[in-house]
Amino acid sequence: MKEVPGGVTAAKGFRAAGMHCGIRKNTEKKDLALIFSDVPCSAAAVYTTNLVKASPLYVTMRHLENGALRAVIANSGNANACAPGGEDAALRACAAAAAALGIAKEDVAVASTGVIGVPLPVGAIEDAAKPLAAKLSESGSDDAAEAIMTTDLTKKSIAVSFSLGGKTVTLGGIAKGSGMIHPNMGTMLSFLTTDARISADMLQAALRESARVTYNRISVDGDTSTNDMNLIMASGLAGNAEITEPGADYGVFLAALNRVNGFLAREMARDGEGATKLITCRVTGAGDTLAAERLAKSVIASSLVKTAMFGADANWGRVLCAMGYSGAAFDPAGVSISFASDSGEVQVCQNGMGLAFDEVKAKEILTKSEVTIICSLGQGGGEAEAFGCDLSYDYVKINGDYRT
Amino acid sequence: MKEVPGGVTAAKGFRAAGMHCGIRKNTEKKDLALIFSDVPCSAAAVYTTNLVKASPLYVTMRHLENGALRAVIANSGNANACAPGGEDAALRACAAAAAALGIAKEDVAVASTGVIGVPLPVGAIEDAAKPLAAKLSESGSDDAAEAIMTTDLTKKSIAVSFSLGGKTVTLGGIAKGSGMIHPNMGTMLSFLTTDARISADMLQAALRESARVTYNRISVDGDTSTNDMNLIMASGLAGNAEITEPGADYGVFLAALNRVNGFLAREMARDGEGATKLITCRVTGAGDTLAAERLAKSVIASSLVKTAMFGADANWGRVLCAMGYSGAAFDPAGVSISFASDSGEVQVCQNGMGLAFDEVKAKEILTKSEVTIICSLGQGGGEAEAFGCDLSYDYVKINGDYRT
Repeated sequence: MKEVPGGVTAAKGFRAAGMHCGIRKNTEKKDLALIFSDVPCSAAAVYTTNLVKASPLYVTMRHLENGALRAVIANSGNANACAPGGEDAALRACAAAAAALGIAKEDVAVASTGVIGVPLPVGAIEDAAKPLAAKLSESGSDDAAEAIMTTDLTKKSIAVSFSLGGKTVTLGGIAKGSGMIHPNMGTMLSFLTTDARISADMLQAALRESARVTYNRISVDGDTSTNDMNLIMASGLAGNAEITEPGADYGVFLAALNRVNGFLAREMARDGEGATKLITCRVTGAGDTLAAERLAKSVIASSLVKTAMFGADANWGRVLCAMGYSGAAFDPAGVSISFASDSGEVQVCQNGMGLAFDEVKAKEILTKSEVTIICSLGQGGGEAEAFGCDLSYDYVKINGDYRT
Repeated sequence: MKEVPGGVTAAKGFRAAGMHCGIRKNTEKKDLALIFSDVPCSAAAVYTTNLVKASPLYVTMRHLENGALRAVIANSGNANACAPGGEDAALRACAAAAAALGIAKEDVAVASTGVIGVPLPVGAIEDAAKPLAAKLSESGSDDAAEAIMTTDLTKKSIAVSFSLGGKTVTLGGIAKGSGMIHPNMGTMLSFLTTDARISADMLQAALRESARVTYNRISVDGDTSTNDMNLIMASGLAGNAEITEPGADYGVFLAALNRVNGFLAREMARDGEGATKLITCRVTGAGDTLAAERLAKSVIASSLVKTAMFGADANWGRVLCAMGYSGAAFDPAGVSISFASDSGEVQVCQNGMGLAFDEVKAKEILTKSEVTIICSLGQGGGEAEAFGCDLSYDYVKINGDYRT
């Protein structure tokens, strides 16, 4: 498997575009993205687990019932959630895109991200649909990635190519996500495309399996959004034998999906609101995978761990404390904890007890932009990694007055 | 029921003291507290639900097995958690207090709060036990309250008196708690005394019932500590007919306990690390009490709600979002949300949809030091209040470098 350029348009058959349509006041900021497939695609999506779901999610769910899509239209600047007329607005966005593309509106998925509770000015999307469709190109991935950004500081994009039954297959995607990020799909939008031939059922199975070990293992602030969506379209243009059941080909495809989703998820954590560093928690030796996952997520989500990481403070007691309230069963007396980065590794706790350690070295390790917290339990074969970021002054600044 | 002065020494038979013994470097800061009863007491306690528990909790649990205590020794500056020799140190603290007081060491409870993972310098406690016992007085409540403070900015103390079977009964207490505070007993210590006559069993039942609706409904930062303890001693000196079963007297006592614990819990939330305001979330019309509790707690604990409150931003979408991921069942389309303070009330959401509202008025309401978020569901009779605070720059500052 190797990385290739092109993001969401790297796979055969896909074009994309992004532009400013007027939902956001700043005319410099793109706020509308379109992704289009030249041919019919099998498609799948997973959504937020929040009981309060934004209107576009319900519309996309209906349009995906037959497992087929050809386009995605997505806006930033307004979540189209909890506002009057939301479902109608989402339908109108699909219809406008469909008319501009000459396809059925049921073949269009719709997504939104931004402020909750304000009616979506869908007229701006309707006016922009045609000019946006005219801009579609095989090099439009970056424009689309930019158009879905909110408080994101970086565009998130990746593509990989790999061999499947003798054919070269490409899988790529773009994503956004910076705040309201928590396991179980934080506010994130992630759109993937592939030219693999794969049935809608297997695509849905693979996406669900992949989301569990990627997006559902990151946390920025513990808030699970109303708008999350991870969607994939498969054009089949690579010409491989169609994947219709579990097996070797499915395994190869899933590995590629995990690579792409894993990368995008980590980029979201790294770009968490106000974040100065990417924090990985690696748990090994837990009773089982589920326990390892719960422990790793609990550490990553702890406000006290996150502020300690911001301050480059080797306060491992907070790590053990967060493990303790995770709900996972383990023996605290068997836990060892280390901090690692490209400056080295320092063990700070053994068998549940503090070790004397070199504070200067620990500070040096924790000052780096990527830090790993390693928790070894010695109780079984369960292991998992979760990803998050530190909690900084800027998180408070960004969120203290986001709406106004 | 009326408030009376005296805190933890207001009830008949109790004396208290606080001093600096040397666990903390700052010699101006008291770090050791002692509470003593002149007569044997029935006693009860509830503890953190964290799987990782500090050593003093295990020692206190054992000493409380017979439902009787006469003294509590508590230090700040060191949690005596996850450090070698912790249990031995906790036992030595009890033994030193017992020797100084001339009682059995099994009649002493011990508690600690502070940094995790550093061995407790128990020699300092042993050296201080006698001078501390010599300082015990009926006006020592404030000194004891001060000695258990860590990042707390205010002493937390209250006492009430009420009539029980014709006798005047007094119940009072002191508490600390500012960070690592979350439902299910955040890092908090809360010591209560009463002169009511009540059996250890009924005292334990009342304490458990009261903790559920007071301490377990506050959150500062979502981290549940290793050291929490809410402990009560009852001297029986008020001379009321002993409470040995549920009934009218038990109800009166429980109401007083809820008043005292409720006050101390709210004071902890108000004094949350970096907090500029006390936030109450009142949920009404939920399916049942448990659902109301889950919803209220989820709102109070949301980082995005907390930062919005810091910024006096009427971002009600985050409130509805936090309700949505609480795990409680409800119909989002039936939810109304208002913000209230002593500047008035403004409704911002009705039937799950945003309302046009006066932003200037909303800002004025949210700028106050006590703000209530009111969520009405119209689905049933379940209601609950939860208490928290805003998330400010100072929370990050305090926790970014707490240990060093």
